[in-house]
This record gives sequence, structure tokens and C-alpha cells, in this order.
Amino acid sequence: MRQWFALCLALLFTTSAAARGYAIQHLEPANWWVGMQHDRVELLVHGPGIAALQPRVDWPGVAVADVARVENANYLFVTLAIAADAKPGRFPIDFMEGERIAVRHDWALEAREAGSAQRHGFDASDAIYLVTPDRFANADPGNDSAPGMQEHGNRADPNGRHGGDITGLRQHLDYIAGLGFTQIWPTPLLENNQPAYSYHGYAITDLYRTDPRFGSNEDYRALSREARAHGLGLIMDVVLNHVGSQHWWLRDPPTRDWFNHPYFDRADRFVETNHRRTTVQDPHAAPADKALFTDGWFVKAMPDLNQRNPHLARYLIQNTLWWIEYAGLSGIREDTFGYADADFLSAWGAAVLAEYPDFAMVGEEWSANPAIVAHWQRGKVNPDGHVPHMPSMMDFPLHIALRTALLQPEGGDYGWVGLYEMLANDFLYPDPDRLVVFAENHDTPRALAHFNGDIALWKLAIAWIATVRGTPQFYYGSEVLLQGPRERNDGELRADMPGGWAGDARDAFTGTGLTDAQRDAQDYVRALFNWRKRTPVVQHGKLQHFAPENGVYVYFRYDGKDTVMVALNRNPEATPLALDRLGDFIGKDSRARDALTGKAVTLGTALSLPGTSATILEIE
Amino acid sequence: MRQWFALCLALLFTTSAAARGYAIQHLEPANWWVGMQHDRVELLVHGPGIAALQPRVDWPGVAVADVARVENANYLFVTLAIAADAKPGRFPIDFMEGERIAVRHDWALEAREAGSAQRHGFDASDAIYLVTPDRFANADPGNDSAPGMQEHGNRADPNGRHGGDITGLRQHLDYIAGLGFTQIWPTPLLENNQPAYSYHGYAITDLYRTDPRFGSNEDYRALSREARAHGLGLIMDVVLNHVGSQHWWLRDPPTRDWFNHPYFDRADRFVETNHRRTTVQDPHAAPADKALFTDGWFVKAMPDLNQRNPHLARYLIQNTLWWIEYAGLSGIREDTFGYADADFLSAWGAAVLAEYPDFAMVGEEWSANPAIVAHWQRGKVNPDGHVPHMPSMMDFPLHIALRTALLQPEGGDYGWVGLYEMLANDFLYPDPDRLVVFAENHDTPRALAHFNGDIALWKLAIAWIATVRGTPQFYYGSEVLLQGPRERNDGELRADMPGGWAGDARDAFTGTGLTDAQRDAQDYVRALFNWRKRTPVVQHGKLQHFAPENGVYVYFRYDGKDTVMVALNRNPEATPLALDRLGDFIGKDSRARDALTGKAVTLGTALSLPGTSATILEIE
Repeated sequence: MRQWFALCLALLFTTSAAARGYAIQHLEPANWWVGMQHDRVELLVHGPGIAALQPRVDWPGVAVADVARVENANYLFVTLAIAADAKPGRFPIDFMEGERIAVRHDWALEAREAGSAQRHGFDASDAIYLVTPDRFANADPGNDSAPGMQEHGNRADPNGRHGGDITGLRQHLDYIAGLGFTQIWPTPLLENNQPAYSYHGYAITDLYRTDPRFGSNEDYRALSREARAHGLGLIMDVVLNHVGSQHWWLRDPPTRDWFNHPYFDRADRFVETNHRRTTVQDPHAAPADKALFTDGWFVKAMPDLNQRNPHLARYLIQNTLWWIEYAGLSGIREDTFGYADADFLSAWGAAVLAEYPDFAMVGEEWSANPAIVAHWQRGKVNPDGHVPHMPSMMDFPLHIALRTALLQPEGGDYGWVGLYEMLANDFLYPDPDRLVVFAENHDTPRALAHFNGDIALWKLAIAWIATVRGTPQFYYGSEVLLQGPRERNDGELRADMPGGWAGDARDAFTGTGLTDAQRDAQDYVRALFNWRKRTPVVQHGKLQHFAPENGVYVYFRYDGKDTVMVALNRNPEATPLALDRLGDFIGKDSRARDALTGKAVTLGTALSLPGTSATILEIE
Repeated sequence: MRQWFALCLALLFTTSAAARGYAIQHLEPANWWVGMQHDRVELLVHGPGIAALQPRVDWPGVAVADVARVENANYLFVTLAIAADAKPGRFPIDFMEGERIAVRHDWALEAREAGSAQRHGFDASDAIYLVTPDRFANADPGNDSAPGMQEHGNRADPNGRHGGDITGLRQHLDYIAGLGFTQIWPTPLLENNQPAYSYHGYAITDLYRTDPRFGSNEDYRALSREARAHGLGLIMDVVLNHVGSQHWWLRDPPTRDWFNHPYFDRADRFVETNHRRTTVQDPHAAPADKALFTDGWFVKAMPDLNQRNPHLARYLIQNTLWWIEYAGLSGIREDTFGYADADFLSAWGAAVLAEYPDFAMVGEEWSANPAIVAHWQRGKVNPDGHVPHMPSMMDFPLHIALRTALLQPEGGDYGWVGLYEMLANDFLYPDPDRLVVFAENHDTPRALAHFNGDIALWKLAIAWIATVRGTPQFYYGSEVLLQGPRERNDGELRADMPGGWAGDARDAFTGTGLTDAQRDAQDYVRALFNWRKRTPVVQHGKLQHFAPENGVYVYFRYDGKDTVMVALNRNPEATPLALDRLGDFIGKDSRARDALTGKAVTLGTALSLPGTSATILEIE
């Protein structure tokens, strides 16, 4: 009876509010959790004229702590203070016009999962499988297009949507785990309601909604849950620098400073970033160049967010925390790091770690210069005063050095020496063991293409990322020799995974139709990463490397208990490796076993390394 | 009468000592000064069986504080403690066999020149003229060969001695000062009694003796004095890493550990450095690689000193202090920095600065990586714990970037951007303003050769070193377009200065016989460096640079009072430079004057930059 009365009342007020033009179009986040460090949640409330109203909450442990209005009367920023003993549940927030409820909106407080704050983010124990979901597996052709979404599925277009989805990922967790990986990093799955190029996910149009062509938020949460059951953590690809040009903020911006260079409707005023990332630390940089780097737009379809606006900063921080908590994430990959405001990045990182002290975030700073990448890693003392909080960064310098080294002829400072000397720069990082190492990603030509199809060189590169310090990251499909173009062409390098579409002639998941070379490559990856997974010393052991000589690069991982030797031979012919130089690790009584085959290997005074190959030995 | 008696006594003892085989072959240093911070001088005494004797000194304020013996009985290390009020003068050191004077050696204490400790080393106010003395001016053909010196003058041999000498330098101080330079750095002038390649000076065979083919110690001191009178400081080229293979230590080493890999008589055991300078900081370096870098020999003719031997360390430190004090130096250039023991380098630098707090030393660390060079600069906090004391380092990264940039086509990250991005790394240095910038030196192909004879590019490079932060260093002869080979060939790039030899058809000093291009180049250098000399803002002003665009690189030097703009145009054609981007420095009421010609320049909304040229403007 009482409930019925309340409903009538609500209908009455809603009707009344609608009559006055009050309606809530967005209220984000839609819920929060009890017991978070972040216990003052700033709700972004969007609706016509909403600024005229005053929010009211009547729920145990929840109080309206602050209400802020901005120059756009369609916005209210409502801070709810949530007590540690607040009661989980669903309750209304009333938006009052004087003493009358002008509009009412339900909101929820939830209980946290046990151990949520203590979650352990990915680290060097892990190996990451990077997936472009639209190109991985299309389990549900019914969602290749979706109501309200501008772009429809079109597999014939290399730059179009091919239909891969979250269910496709969920169906192949066995496969990914079976290859030896322990983390999956799908590129962004949030709504990209853009007219074109929506498949890649980096032009987000709703920061709280999974793109329906991939699935629902619930599907995403199920992916995380099922992945965890397979021993796979889920890494979310977060974009703090920009949104998609079709984000609803563009149609009704909260403030004039919500975006940088906010001429979103006027192509003639489009201001592009200069990509001059050195300006961040350069003591001589012209202020205008520095501002243009962070404030210019990445591309026309991606308006640049001004994270100096405190409401936007809080929105982005809360959005990250929300997804971690909601989906049970094990890590975040942050896109276009450095293009965002540096102070904000610091605050964002600090907030995430305050909530989840042992969480992992890895930033993308695409520079060949380790002094630029190191700037962002937690613990780095920077001359410019920036205090970074990122546990991890993508190791672009090593990535570039690896690809360069393997194409250069050996000799002098070329070839392996370039890679060796780049790794030597680890003194620049506070924690090099937390870097993520990779031979390729979704933005680079695949390593196999870079090496002109040379599978032996590709295997060397994969052996390197699996055995050097840090967390290796692998890109889907390379295990079955997806190659793609040698010059960057995003749509083509992100080719469809064989077997991900009904009717595919080849199927990477089942092995059907694979060539011998594909099977061999897949077996290699499987053997390598499964061995890595069960071998702590190659995850966390110290690294010692020897200056490359004669086309051979040798290094050891060791922890006082176990020792692994890696010898990478660039020469096409078998090459002897004299062992006397390695006497700190290999004595005359040492025995060795091939890490991948388990077979005993005879050590004498020299070891014969097969041509263009990685020899990985467990030394006893 | 008393003196006569003493002389008889001395003769008697000398005779007696000789009978027993006692004779002092070396006692170094031959003198010291009263009032030095370094007031405990360890004399290296060398003579057959000298270790059997005990030194005795009877002079006010001087005491034998310690006597050390090593495994070679032909050495004694005698520490004299010199009181602050010790009396300057010449006095004997008696080497006693029991109570009898076995051998007597005169030694001297001198008074310091006033202000010696407060001397001001070179800094960014200065511009350095680097000279290979054997190739600069042969004022005294009589000393092209010298008694006891193995190699004789032979101008026909590009790798031989050509006869240049200290007197030749002294005669042309007017010329050097007239070009606008304020410091001269001659490559080493100490004795190199080697059978070949002795002209370059880096294989020193007596650390206390000027090579007689260059002149005497007194000549060197006169050079310093006269240079100072011309407003020119003298920078000594010091070699701590090695000596020449004909150094007398090689024939009778003080200790087994005086040299690293001391198999100097057995070519089959020659151990060469691996040049792997990254091992110094590399947290992963194999200890053997690290040791080989510092302990291997630079070349066969240059045995590697083991500065971990404390007697040798003291010897080298004292030797440096001795030359600073003796010759009134204004700076030191230290050769093959990093190849020496790092702890020793720290101790050496600290000792020099303890004695001369405002002195200047610049180290040669030939690396393209600023993180490697920065490791050695005073104030750098290094993860490896190394505490450096070098006020200055040679800016090899910028040198390499400059030469690379000017040969690359413009566009993307090529051309000027490479130079711009290298300069951006200045955050790695504690004090980038103290770096020494250069386009070439005695070990590199000349810049003009590197630029394939393109004088316009060469002028751009010289304008850069004269206007960027730091102390510019120029190499003799380039002002008259000495070019030399494009691939490194030391003997040829260190060509004879035109006019330095009697009968030369062209004379850079008088201008006789120079081509128009040579005169023009010389005028350019003269105008540029004289302008720099009288323009404090270009010496000490802050630097702000703008990301290069359209082949043009613009930067400013400014100090709140004066402003200089430098615009470097790579394009062969005249290029407009829009000035609105430079609004922080150039307003609508700004006026400008060409720095080199003094002519007024009209500033509008754009400036037309002549093709391939440096425009240097004083902005008012």
C-alpha cells in the first residue's frame, strides 16, 4: 500500500517535472560502493535546466555534501558523501524545486566484493594477450549492427566493423589460457557511436557503456569473471586524453573549458596536437609548443579533454574506479599517455592506487627515448617536479630497439648491440621489471611483416619478449603468422583471427586448415609462454646480459635458486658459443636442459647454437 | 765556506751512493707550493734499490709524514707534510742508509701566485679554439726532432710529426684572440717519446715534461702567461686513463697492479677495451664486460693505468694540481673519460675542485646518449651511487645530433627535429649551460667534410654552436675551410694550418693567398665569435626554442634585459617565418638589428629568411 502510494507520488512529480522541462538525461555514475577510499562521489547530472534544482537524498549514511553549478544550466555536479557504514541498496535522489520534487532518479549503493581493494594487478609473472575485439571472434552476428549505432557491420571493409564481440572472446578463453597467457587486454570496448572507424574503440562516446555491437556491460563483467576462472586477468584499455567526436558532451558541453580548442563543429578551427612529447620535460620548450602537445586534438574525430577542469578530472577518475570495481579488472592500459594533462595524470594514478594499492596500470608513451618514458613511472624523481604514479609503462624504447636491431647487419654498434645498449638504459627507470615488453601491438606493423616474413627472426623477437625482464605482451593472431602490411595500415594489420568467423577456412582455435608453418608457430608460442608461466625465475629473476659478440646475444635470468640462459643467434648458420666467458653462471659441472623441449643439452667448452634461433636453457 | 763544505759532503755521499748503486732517476713532483689544500705531497721516488733508504728532510714546516714501499725495491713513496707557514725555498731531501746520506736530491717549495686558488675556469662566457699543436705553426724548425726523441719530424707523412710547436702558438695568440675566442685548448703537449704517431700527444711518456719537440715546460708556462695577456685562457688536455707504451714505468713498473692487463711486452696478451661504455651504469651488465671496458687498453700503444692503486691515484691527482698551479691553467679537458676507474675519477675531480673551487674541467664521453654523458656531471644524482665532480662535459649527443640533422631531409621527425629533441634532453643534466658544444673536433671528420663541402650548412652548424647554451668549441683551420676526408682519418683531418710553415702559399694568419671563400668563412667566424664575446645574453641567457617547422628552427636567448633571436633555415630557398608564434619575444613594436652586421631589420608579420642560413637578430 505504501509502495503503491510512493509510486503514485513519483509519477505525479515526474509528470510535473516533465511539464516544466525537467528530465535527467544522464546521471553518472549510476551507482557506487560502500567502503571505498573514494567516498565522496561527484555525480554528473545532465538534463534541461537541471541547475535550477537542488538534490536531496534520504538514505542511511549518504549525504549531499556539495552541489556545484557551472555555466551550462543543464548540468549539476552533486557530491554524495558515503559513510563507511552506509547501507547498500537502491534509493532515489530527489531534485527539488523549492520544496517540491521536480524529478527523481534512482541510484544504488552496492556492497564490494571481498578483497576488492587488495586485488593484485598484473606484473612480471604475467604474459598479456592483446586483442582487437572486433577482429577476434564474431560469436553473435546479430549484434554486428545495433539500434542507434551509426556504423553497421561490414566485414568487406578493412576499416569497418567486422563483428567480433565479447561473446567471441568469452568462447575462446580456453584457447588464450592454453597458449600460456595470464592476462587479456582487449582494445576499448566502450561505445564508439562514430560514423566510421568505430571498430578500434578509441573514440568513446559513452564512458559508462559497453558498445552494444560488442555486448553489454553485463557481458563485459561476465568476460572478466570467466577469464578469471581461466586464470586470465582482464586489462581495460582506458582513454583519458579524448573522447569520440559523437560523445554527447559535444552536443551540450558542461563548460566552455571541458574540451581544449573546443571548436568541435567547425573543421576550420581544428587544432591538432604537434606530437612534440619532448616538450613535457624540455626545460627550453616554448610554452605554446608544450600546450599544443597536450591540448591539440589527437585527430579530428577525437576532441581533446581538458582535465584541468576539476569536474572533468573527477569524472574521469571516478569512471576508472567504477570500471575496476564493477568489472573486477586486473589492470589498466592507458592510451596516449602524456597527451593528457600531467598534473591530472598524477592525480588519476594516485587515486587509483589509493583505492587499489597493488593494482597495475601501464601507460602508452610512444617514444624511442627511455628518459621520456621513465618520466611517468612511479618513483621517478623528475627535475620538472612531476610526481608519477604509473606502476608500469609500455617499453616502446626496447620495442623499437628490438625491431631495429633485427633488421640491421651485425657488427660494430649495429645489430644486437643496439638492443643491448637500450636495455642498459634501465638505470633510468625506477622499476624496469614492471615495464611491458612487446614486439608489436595494434598500432605497429606486425613483427613478422617488419621482418619481411622471416619467421626465424620473428621467433627470436618472441623469445626475447618472453625472457627479458618485464611483462611480455603478445598480439593476437601472430601465433598463426598473421602478417599484414609492412607499412602501417591499421585496418589491415588488425586482420580477422582465422576461425573467429563462421565458415573460415582456417581455424586458429581448433587448428583446422592451418599450414605446417602456422602450427609450428603456434606450438612455439604455446611452448614458450607455458614454460614461462611455470618458471618463476624468468618472471622475477635478476637479469645479467653479456655484450653481444659475433651475432650472438646471451643473457641469464637467475634468482639464487634457478638459472636460465638465453642465447640469441642472429647468424643464419650454426655458431659456436664459447662458455668460458659465462663462468659466473656455467661451471664445468653444470648441466643444462632445453627449456622448451625438456631435453638434456651437453655443455662442454662451447655450445653450438643453431642458425637464427633462440636457445633457452635451464642450467643446473 | 759552509756552502763549499756542504757541496763536498754532497759529492762524497753521491759518489758513495753511486758505488752502492743508489741514484735517483725520478723524483716527482719536483716541487710543490706552500698554502695548497693538498698539503701532503706523495713523492714518487725511483732509483735502483731506493726502497732500502729512508728519506730525511730538514726544512722549516716540512716533515716526512709517511714512507711507503711497494714490491719493486726501486720505488719509494714519500709523503711530505707541508705546513701552511712552511718557508718557500730549495732544500735537499736526504735518503739515508742508516745514519749515512746515501743519496741527496734537491726539492723546492714555492710561493703561490696571488689568487691562484680563486682562479675562474672557463664557462659559457668563453669560446674555445682547439688546436693540434703539431699542425698549427712551426715557429722553430730546429726542434722538429730532438735528442733522445725517437720520432723525427717528417711533414710528408700525414701521420708523422710536422713540426708545429709552442712558439708557433705563442706567435699567433693575436690571431686566435682576434677571431673572438677566449680559450685555447691544445691537444696534449707532454712528452710522447713513441716510435710513431707521437704528434697527437695522447701517448704520454713523461707526465711532468713538455715534449721537447713542442718546447720546454717554461715555454708552456710562457704560452699560458702570454695567452692570458691576450684574454685567452689555457686549457690543458689531461689523460688519466693511460700512458704511452714507452713511458718509463713500463720498463720498471712500481707495482704489479700499476697497469691493467700488464702484459706490455707480450703482444699476444694484449687486452683491448670493449668500448662498452653502457656497462658503467647498466644494472644488468656482466661484471666481466664492465671490467673490460675500463681495464682493457685503448690501443696497443697506450697501456691502461690502474687508478685503483692508491699511489698511482695520488700521482695522477698531484700531477694535475701541479700543472694547474705551475702553468696557471684556466681549465682541463680530460681525455677518454669513463674509461678510467669511476671512483678514481670522482676522487680526482673532488681534489681539483677542493683546490680550485671555481675551476673548469670538461670530460670526453663519446656517446650519443645524454643519459650516459650526464652521469659524469657535477650534481647528477646517479642510481649507481657514483658522485661526479665534472663541472662540464663535452656535448657529444648534441654534436652527433647536429651533424645527423643537417644531413637529413626535413620532415616528420627528421632534420631539425632531431636536434631540437636532443636539446630537449637537457633535463638529464644538472647544469646544461656548462656543457661544451662543438660541430667537430680533432677526432671527427671536419664538419665541412661531413657536409660534403657545403659551406652554407657548415655556417649553420657554426652559428648553432655559437648561439646555443654552453661553451662553444671550434677546431683550428675550419675558419679557412680546412676540410679533410669525410671518413675518419686522423692524420689528414689534422692538416697543417695554412701559414704555419715557412713558405706556405696560403696564410690564414695574414690572409695572404686565401681564396674569397676562405676569407668569407674567416670573416664569418670572426664576426660571429666577436659578437658572442661582447654579448652576455648569448653566453648566459636562458634559451627557449620552438619546435622546428618547415625547415626552420627558431630559438631565443634572453635574460630579461636583452633578447637574441636565432632562426636557422635549412631550405635552399628563402623562407618566410611567421612571427605571431613568437609573440612572447616579438611584439608589434619590436625592432631588430642583425647581430653580425648591425643593420636594422624590419619586422612585420613575417620575416624572410635567406636560404640555408642563420639569421641572428638582436631584438629591442
